[in-house]
Amino acid sequence: MFTKPLRGIIPPVITPMIDNDTLDVIGLENLLNRMIKGGVSGVFILGTSGEAQNISYNVRKELIKETCRIVEKRIPVLVGITDTSFSESLLLAANAALYGADALVAAPPYYFAPGQAELIQYYNDLANQLPLPLFLYNMPSHVKVMIEPETVLALSENPNIIGLKDSSANGVYFQKLIYLLRNKPEFTLLCGPEEMTAEVILMGGHGGVNGGANLFPELYVALYDAAASKDFEKLAELQSQVLRVSLSLYNIGKYASSYIKGVKTALNLLGVCSDYMAEPFHKFKDAERAVVKKKLIELGLDI
Amino acid sequence: MFTKPLRGIIPPVITPMIDNDTLDVIGLENLLNRMIKGGVSGVFILGTSGEAQNISYNVRKELIKETCRIVEKRIPVLVGITDTSFSESLLLAANAALYGADALVAAPPYYFAPGQAELIQYYNDLANQLPLPLFLYNMPSHVKVMIEPETVLALSENPNIIGLKDSSANGVYFQKLIYLLRNKPEFTLLCGPEEMTAEVILMGGHGGVNGGANLFPELYVALYDAAASKDFEKLAELQSQVLRVSLSLYNIGKYASSYIKGVKTALNLLGVCSDYMAEPFHKFKDAERAVVKKKLIELGLDI
Amino acid sequence: MFTKPLRGIIPPVITPMIDNDTLDVIGLENLLNRMIKGGVSGVFILGTSGEAQNISYNVRKELIKETCRIVEKRIPVLVGITDTSFSESLLLAANAALYGADALVAAPPYYFAPGQAELIQYYNDLANQLPLPLFLYNMPSHVKVMIEPETVLALSENPNIIGLKDSSANGVYFQKLIYLLRNKPEFTLLCGPEEMTAEVILMGGHGGVNGGANLFPELYVALYDAAASKDFEKLAELQSQVLRVSLSLYNIGKYASSYIKGVKTALNLLGVCSDYMAEPFHKFKDAERAVVKKKLIELGLDI
Amino acid sequence: MFTKPLRGIIPPVITPMIDNDTLDVIGLENLLNRMIKGGVSGVFILGTSGEAQNISYNVRKELIKETCRIVEKRIPVLVGITDTSFSESLLLAANAALYGADALVAAPPYYFAPGQAELIQYYNDLANQLPLPLFLYNMPSHVKVMIEPETVLALSENPNIIGLKDSSANGVYFQKLIYLLRNKPEFTLLCGPEEMTAEVILMGGHGGVNGGANLFPELYVALYDAAASKDFEKLAELQSQVLRVSLSLYNIGKYASSYIKGVKTALNLLGVCSDYMAEPFHKFKDAERAVVKKKLIELGLDI
Repeated sequence: MFTKPLRGIIPPVITPMIDNDTLDVIGLENLLNRMIKGGVSGVFILGTSGEAQNISYNVRKELIKETCRIVEKRIPVLVGITDTSFSESLLLAANAALYGADALVAAPPYYFAPGQAELIQYYNDLANQLPLPLFLYNMPSHVKVMIEPETVLALSENPNIIGLKDSSANGVYFQKLIYLLRNKPEFTLLCGPEEMTAEVILMGGHGGVNGGANLFPELYVALYDAAASKDFEKLAELQSQVLRVSLSLYNIGKYASSYIKGVKTALNLLGVCSDYMAEPFHKFKDAERAVVKKKLIELGLDI
Repeated sequence: MFTKPLRGIIPPVITPMIDNDTLDVIGLENLLNRMIKGGVSGVFILGTSGEAQNISYNVRKELIKETCRIVEKRIPVLVGITDTSFSESLLLAANAALYGADALVAAPPYYFAPGQAELIQYYNDLANQLPLPLFLYNMPSHVKVMIEPETVLALSENPNIIGLKDSSANGVYFQKLIYLLRNKPEFTLLCGPEEMTAEVILMGGHGGVNGGANLFPELYVALYDAAASKDFEKLAELQSQVLRVSLSLYNIGKYASSYIKGVKTALNLLGVCSDYMAEPFHKFKDAERAVVKKKLIELGLDI
Repeated sequence: MFTKPLRGIIPPVITPMIDNDTLDVIGLENLLNRMIKGGVSGVFILGTSGEAQNISYNVRKELIKETCRIVEKRIPVLVGITDTSFSESLLLAANAALYGADALVAAPPYYFAPGQAELIQYYNDLANQLPLPLFLYNMPSHVKVMIEPETVLALSENPNIIGLKDSSANGVYFQKLIYLLRNKPEFTLLCGPEEMTAEVILMGGHGGVNGGANLFPELYVALYDAAASKDFEKLAELQSQVLRVSLSLYNIGKYASSYIKGVKTALNLLGVCSDYMAEPFHKFKDAERAVVKKKLIELGLDI
Repeated sequence: MFTKPLRGIIPPVITPMIDNDTLDVIGLENLLNRMIKGGVSGVFILGTSGEAQNISYNVRKELIKETCRIVEKRIPVLVGITDTSFSESLLLAANAALYGADALVAAPPYYFAPGQAELIQYYNDLANQLPLPLFLYNMPSHVKVMIEPETVLALSENPNIIGLKDSSANGVYFQKLIYLLRNKPEFTLLCGPEEMTAEVILMGGHGGVNGGANLFPELYVALYDAAASKDFEKLAELQSQVLRVSLSLYNIGKYASSYIKGVKTALNLLGVCSDYMAEPFHKFKDAERAVVKKKLIELGLDI
């Protein structure tokens, strides 16, 4: 098990695939080893960046197995079990435990929008039946509801709920969490958006679950280190680089899926893994791929 | 196969359950036979009212099997295959074909919000691989996107896409569909909300997928008949009854799930089936149950 | 005073302007006389279509004065007093009374989103101080809140609140209103969107506040008459024409303001009035104007 | 004129009123002098906290005049001119210039939701006609649109647009602004929400427009100083106090207006000014007032 709170960069791993039902296992190996070499503190598979909801349960289970095999206990493996069906979440969790993962992550059920009281009961019911500790996952843009700060505080009483990843980009929300949970120093608070991870670390947050760390793990680890050690000179330079990546690669194409497409295309251009996207999405065509290539060159990559 | 367009009342069947992993098969039998006796033109299982997203795939498959067995080809069975994972939709569809269902229904993938061009590609890819014809399902409150009228028009070119159920409650949307699809008289246009089904029929729509028809199938069938035959005297009386049901039973309790809870509790009080709700929801407690009972008595039910 | 409920077509009059601070009085005269000749039952100035919020109070007051002068009591004049400031609403209302208008119309204050209890107090406070009877105006897309059906029912107790215009396009909402207000036959229920006005009339609504009636008043009056007399043959033909107008003219250009721009450009091409738009909007440039012209010709207009 | 960028705490001044049409001038004097004594760098009147949209233009103009008289050039006065009507914004601006204010602040027109291209034209048209420099005001919860980072960058080319206040609470948005405007060191970037002001200052933002500074100006000035000087020990203590204020006072009652009601009630209990709220809102009743009092005592205030 890992020390609590979990600190540092924990990339939300994209899922390399060859087609809708086939994992790109070699790509996954490249990707994970590259991250571990880059100094990340853990990996989070089957999150939003991992297209978890879009891939079959068989592929999800294979991904859990292969990730645990490749990582080989070098760092903690966190597994997303977000599902609208309670039973399917339990099945995914059982697989995670079976193959040796370290923790689970669950956003609220995302078809019906639950109320806060319903969320409290749901998460307690879930955590009480899980074989591994659970991180909450706040993702209102996809899930339609916030896990309100007071709800998080209530759920932090459950010994099997050990932290939260916030992808809301709402700075007030995160500061309220830091304040409300000040007496639970082991409860991990992680920030999704890489553009605001530095400031969250400066204010007392524990780490970043940053999509860009799929591409450039060293950069985000260095950003975390600079923020954690309050080295503002380095931080200014690294934050600029992080913003350049974000503004260069995540808004090519016009859909909500453009961020993942950008990351997958860049990884493919860097020779790491396949850029296949699970339905209902489709990888970039040549025109957008050329833009990604141009942006990578502008970022100083030698491809 | 059924005559196209499909006309009349096709209830979105609630899913009677004993616990999270066990179907209430006797309750299902009561429910379906009661609907068929009430004159419905078909049944739609595994929709929003059926809590499809919240129940396990095993229960979903059992529900398909049992429904087809009970209905025994007396009326068409429509099966919801809405899923964020393309592969899981195909698996559900294969089960529907295996057990003798007549058609499939799919709302857009509901985690990432797709763009309209993405929807066109998704639905064509899906329909081309399905063993049964497909109804589109517009459900923006849960899915975050509308299937825009022009998108529906484009998809109506696919011979395996045969209709649409609209649950947006948006009257302008439905009228645009009626107009844009005026040259495709076999393309079925169904209205979800029972409060506006009558007017949609008057204007040229084909039927209603009304949750209240779980409870009072005769009422909604009579409403459809009155609207289809333009019997305005009867229609006024029936529309009032439909609104009384809606305003009495669907807003007890304070969550988005209160409509299904109300229907399930009422069915249980009427002796039809269990009122268990799949996680993350929970059936009404005694206080709300007493309100439902009182409302049913006010509606003239003898319970 | 007019007979209650107010029935028929009451166009939401666009505001002809020469520049940001100057009314196009001759254009207004053309526009209003054309409407009255077309058989409308009233006019509604200073609504959303009238760009009320975007024009100065001086122009708003001049528009009230000129409209009342031109209409000369031939039909009722309804004046929008929607404002975030209570005092400014009262001032506009005083002007309306001074120049002989017949009724007032107010959407909820639209900066802060008020709760339903706040709305009840607000509307009662307002109606109690108004010199003329008030129509509520439900416009959630611009105002961020619905005036819930139960709120309307509560407000209908105020003798100075005599009706409601609904621009939500929500068919369930309108049917709930018809049902809840069934014992107040004098309370007027008007439908904003022209695409669903026919069905609302068929179900017991009283009229339409249809933007297209700025352009083709006879068409919408004929639609109302066909629906009110349940002449379904005529209705089918007229409804098709109404949808053709809507799909041809309201979505040119890509902004929320395209509907008003389309109507104003068409009116200018028809020789009725100026197409100037108040800041922050701007009239169509040549390219879009050419599209409007083409669409008008396709609609059979001789321009 | 002030040095650019404007740094420090600039409270969004609440508007003390005696009734809907009467300013509480003595209360305003107390409030402003208390702030200046507390070390604020400027004041911003007629913003969201100032209920600008809800008060009449006469009161708004009187407020401008009285504020400028009381402040007497000791600190810069920023005046909100946010309006749906361009002409009314210009009139407010003319008053601000007449009485000696230093700058203007404008959120987008908030009835129709404008597109980004429309925003660029609108703000350039406005700034080009204003007698004083302009701050943009990003307030999507009330205005329905974001002023996108690229739009801000484009507008920063206008020499009369000198900064932006962001009330979105979106941390990614603010970091994008800091990065995109890195070559415009005089362009002021201010943070609305007090809970995230410290981190924004740490990352290179210039100041906070914090509602709580109406109540406790010294606290927010000290927070700014600690962040600006990177004194993390002090900052941790002050940030806790800021969060305590926020969680104690801003969520009493259940409406969107509860934040302003909380601040006004607290100021009244502290003996500073009246707690009257302009329509459509109403000051707290006794029950909520008692809660505010209790919370102030818990915060250590001697009342």
